[in-house]
Amino acid sequence: MDVNVVNLKEKAALIKELHAYKRIAGMNDYDFKLVKARREFVWHRHPDTDEVFYAVEGGFEIHLREKTLTLKEGDLVVIPRNVEHKPVCKDLCTVLLIEPRGTLNTGDAGGALTDTRLEDI
Amino acid sequence: MDVNVVNLKEKAALIKELHAYKRIAGMNDYDFKLVKARREFVWHRHPDTDEVFYAVEGGFEIHLREKTLTLKEGDLVVIPRNVEHKPVCKDLCTVLLIEPRGTLNTGDAGGALTDTRLEDI
Repeated sequence: MDVNVVNLKEKAALIKELHAYKRIAGMNDYDFKLVKARREFVWHRHPDTDEVFYAVEGGFEIHLREKTLTLKEGDLVVIPRNVEHKPVCKDLCTVLLIEPRGTLNTGDAGGALTDTRLEDI
Repeated sequence: MDVNVVNLKEKAALIKELHAYKRIAGMNDYDFKLVKARREFVWHRHPDTDEVFYAVEGGFEIHLREKTLTLKEGDLVVIPRNVEHKPVCKDLCTVLLIEPRGTLNTGDAGGALTDTRLEDI
């Protein structure tokens, strides 16, 4: 048994590469993934799952078709399954994603930003 | 569709009662619950699920049989299923729990601290 405490910002400080998903924890069949980003992502949806975004460092937006969500540090939002969304990090931010293991970053959209790499840190 | 951003500390500020679990979000069949605490909890385990603790405000300890985990603000830990643990909040703290809907706070131990109330805030 290996039970260890992780600090979100300390883990974030270990990440040098943008747009690379890093797994910091697992709960049942869910992964907790940190990503540092500064980009406009693609519109997509996840047909099979809700998805949690938590703003660890910096702020960012999640565009929905009906409105735009603005997250600041310490904010959390659940994007329901099948709801189209487009995360936009204008400035550097660190995001914690919580979602079922194997959830594709680009959901149903696919394309060049699809990334299945997931390193443990 | 109702997709809203929640801030963990702003939600915590709404909680006036100690040891009352408040639901701030749901992801699939998981609940995100905030609780303000200042107590020594009971030894227990959850036979069917891992459990996530995140320190939103203040620090606390989680005693395991082999060691004691010390969490400070911004720290997260996953207690694996079936691992005995005893959370201890000596000073006031706010904890975010992430676990499957219906997970009992006292797990297999039961007893006077068992509490199935869960108000949305």
